[in-house]
Amino acid sequence: MRGEQELGIVNSKDENPGDWYAEVVKKSEIADYSPVGGFIIVRPRGIALWESIRFYLDSWFRETGVENAYFPVLIPEKYLEREKEIIEGFDPEVAWVTHGGEQELGEKLAVRPTSESIIAPFMSRWVRSHRDLPLRLNQWCSVVRWEATETKPFFRTKEFLWQEGHTVHKNKEDAWEETMQRLDQYERLYQEILAIPVLKGEKPEHDKFPGAETTSTVEALMPDGKSVQGGTSHYLGTTFSEAFEIEYVDENEENQIAHTTSWGLSWRAIGALIMTHSDDQGLVLPPTVAPEQIVIVPIWRSDTKQEVMRYARDIQENLSEYRVRLDDRDGKNPGFKFNEWELKGVPIRIEIGPKEVKNKTATLVHRPDGERHLIEVNGIGQTIGEHLEKIYDKLYQRALENLQGKIHEVKNEEELIEKLTTNGGYAKAPWCGAETCDERVKEKISASIVMIPPKTEGEMEKGEECAVCGGVAKEIVYFAKKY
Amino acid sequence: MRGEQELGIVNSKDENPGDWYAEVVKKSEIADYSPVGGFIIVRPRGIALWESIRFYLDSWFRETGVENAYFPVLIPEKYLEREKEIIEGFDPEVAWVTHGGEQELGEKLAVRPTSESIIAPFMSRWVRSHRDLPLRLNQWCSVVRWEATETKPFFRTKEFLWQEGHTVHKNKEDAWEETMQRLDQYERLYQEILAIPVLKGEKPEHDKFPGAETTSTVEALMPDGKSVQGGTSHYLGTTFSEAFEIEYVDENEENQIAHTTSWGLSWRAIGALIMTHSDDQGLVLPPTVAPEQIVIVPIWRSDTKQEVMRYARDIQENLSEYRVRLDDRDGKNPGFKFNEWELKGVPIRIEIGPKEVKNKTATLVHRPDGERHLIEVNGIGQTIGEHLEKIYDKLYQRALENLQGKIHEVKNEEELIEKLTTNGGYAKAPWCGAETCDERVKEKISASIVMIPPKTEGEMEKGEECAVCGGVAKEIVYFAKKY
Repeated sequence: MRGEQELGIVNSKDENPGDWYAEVVKKSEIADYSPVGGFIIVRPRGIALWESIRFYLDSWFRETGVENAYFPVLIPEKYLEREKEIIEGFDPEVAWVTHGGEQELGEKLAVRPTSESIIAPFMSRWVRSHRDLPLRLNQWCSVVRWEATETKPFFRTKEFLWQEGHTVHKNKEDAWEETMQRLDQYERLYQEILAIPVLKGEKPEHDKFPGAETTSTVEALMPDGKSVQGGTSHYLGTTFSEAFEIEYVDENEENQIAHTTSWGLSWRAIGALIMTHSDDQGLVLPPTVAPEQIVIVPIWRSDTKQEVMRYARDIQENLSEYRVRLDDRDGKNPGFKFNEWELKGVPIRIEIGPKEVKNKTATLVHRPDGERHLIEVNGIGQTIGEHLEKIYDKLYQRALENLQGKIHEVKNEEELIEKLTTNGGYAKAPWCGAETCDERVKEKISASIVMIPPKTEGEMEKGEECAVCGGVAKEIVYFAKKY
Repeated sequence: MRGEQELGIVNSKDENPGDWYAEVVKKSEIADYSPVGGFIIVRPRGIALWESIRFYLDSWFRETGVENAYFPVLIPEKYLEREKEIIEGFDPEVAWVTHGGEQELGEKLAVRPTSESIIAPFMSRWVRSHRDLPLRLNQWCSVVRWEATETKPFFRTKEFLWQEGHTVHKNKEDAWEETMQRLDQYERLYQEILAIPVLKGEKPEHDKFPGAETTSTVEALMPDGKSVQGGTSHYLGTTFSEAFEIEYVDENEENQIAHTTSWGLSWRAIGALIMTHSDDQGLVLPPTVAPEQIVIVPIWRSDTKQEVMRYARDIQENLSEYRVRLDDRDGKNPGFKFNEWELKGVPIRIEIGPKEVKNKTATLVHRPDGERHLIEVNGIGQTIGEHLEKIYDKLYQRALENLQGKIHEVKNEEELIEKLTTNGGYAKAPWCGAETCDERVKEKISASIVMIPPKTEGEMEKGEECAVCGGVAKEIVYFAKKY
């Protein structure tokens, strides 16, 4: 029997977060599993979230000189091989196309895992003079990486939607500025649109994107204490421009080697969004990206239906500047509607009954915590705007408190392990710079260095010892378990 | 030597349209050939056109109840096989993924050629009650079809971007209305946005989309006399819903079989756009989709530079409601700039020299035909708006005249062949309904039935004979050579 009892979430976010997450994603109609392991079907409520993310990021990219382009979904093996030869550590697991129709192909084609190897040769053609720089391209597309892991919608999928930006600059200074500008835009997306505070930093040497001089990252802490890499921006130095001959003639008619960057953010952001805010009643969404910001639920008996409905429609019209839905379904009672819209994460519910009609008021309920207000219908547009902002702040504050309460300064391995296994979050620890120390922590508790904070956060004290091996510490790093 | 002499188009649209088209696409920086035959790289000026098309269509879809979704890029072989078993004539040539990383897959996966086979089973799950209907999904994605043909950017490519809509309805009437609504939206896109008149009609029985009851099409006539299928909308009847069990419980609690539709429009629309309007100077674009609608070219000597530039910037500010570019490059002379922006298809050029500054005027030139106007700078925003509309109408009228002059009523095969081989365009002919007659024309002159016009265009006279075999004619059809 399909029925109303199936609507609610049965798993608990605290007790079994994995099952809870899968259940929320499915029951709130965000996504479904595909018949092929590792692939998902993204339903309209899920794609609406991605389209919001795309809308904001794309407009910021445009304002800062980025142009969209489109490169082929299939990349010849020799292009990837060339990148493998040149770029140490580049060896992606990809899906290989070997046949076209009935025919075996002369050369295997990879379904794009990322597009540096096909974009760089074209950038080399298009860049001739300093006047062609900076060259900033971006594409919104899907990529496939054949990593054998359990499927977790948006976090771990073989195919995902993302944007990949690729830029060429005259020198290190310009390319570095670009790298940081994109990282700042990712931070802005999380903090101003998704209501998720993030930490900015760099990946350690041994965990950089292959070929990058620096991989910078925004990290978001989930309520279960694990860190999500929310987006990365790479300063590639001259690695790719040397390999693919991206050169230009400068103002003095001299040949120069260019510097490049790449940066990407995927639908994992949707995963972080759901994981951060949602609860045991289902999805919770910030008003910025919610497909509906407000749902109006009329409450009537047959003798009051007409006046309640007329009043509800008036309110709907007064709120036309927002994404508002009037749930006028006849076959469902108000309680059912409350549950359904809570499950689907609509930030504000407006309840309207005969009393509200009589008093020219409306009852307004905040999704995240059930906070209720009886408001005047006069000026309701402005009032609602204030409440939407309040809800956004509430979500952001809650996430910020989670983050702030889970950054633990630790001095030795015992503390590090104790904090990360009992509290989760970040262990802020001095580190000697050796990959072996990172490996050791990973083997013991599946946590690793997720980020090195910017030096502007303060100098390390002199004489500090690596929390893992006790050797001379070189810098402060953040260890965490991660998605 | 790369240089200015390479900028211009050397091929002639009339004399060698194929080479001319390829040259325009490449030199106006719309697209480039990929290293893999059949694939192209779409550069920012090309993607901007696709984003415009997407913007308009997507907003019309939304207004009429369509929601976007995203289904996987890889489809298991058994899904396509199932469709092949059920749907007569469905046997697409696809790119097959056989390996993930180093491992051979247990089952081959097709890079999606179209998504009915993966969407239909999910629609079957999601549709339970009449309250779930209509269900209207659309996705913007890329598809790959392994058809062995010469590459012609946007017209013939193995990969193309498109949108595919898939809908489920209660009955034939609703599904038919949907099919026609989408066809009307495609017509609107061509006529109101791309300045291309189209003919609407149906494909003959033997040329329908496999599984469709009716395939409707919008056909655009290119200046070289060939027809382009600009978009298709299929009424699928109950073929897919029977095969994939898309059923619902109606208002009387009875099980009913649903009716479905699908409809798609690809980046071929960009090809039709370029082919229709462009000329031997390069790209010509209607103002609706042009990345820049206006380019301002200042003309100065060193002693007048300051005043001319100040004036040019004032005009730019006054035109902020449009997409306007001030070409203030120092190293290029005005003639070079004129040529470059003509090549790139900017609809209006504004020339500003000391005389214009003195008289508070501006010289305005229409891209399509070089029509010049000296206009008052006072009220320039409104004046420009009128000229942009005029340019749109000019392009549309020219294309309409081409179309109207090339619909030839013919009565027999001799006339049919004569008209299509000397004039091109459409031969409007009575037809008996036999595929063999269509085949015969195809063998002789590579032309075929592209469309059956709506019956509302008038009844066929009684006693007409098939133009090909002389048998009893059943209906009037349009023969044409096609892309």
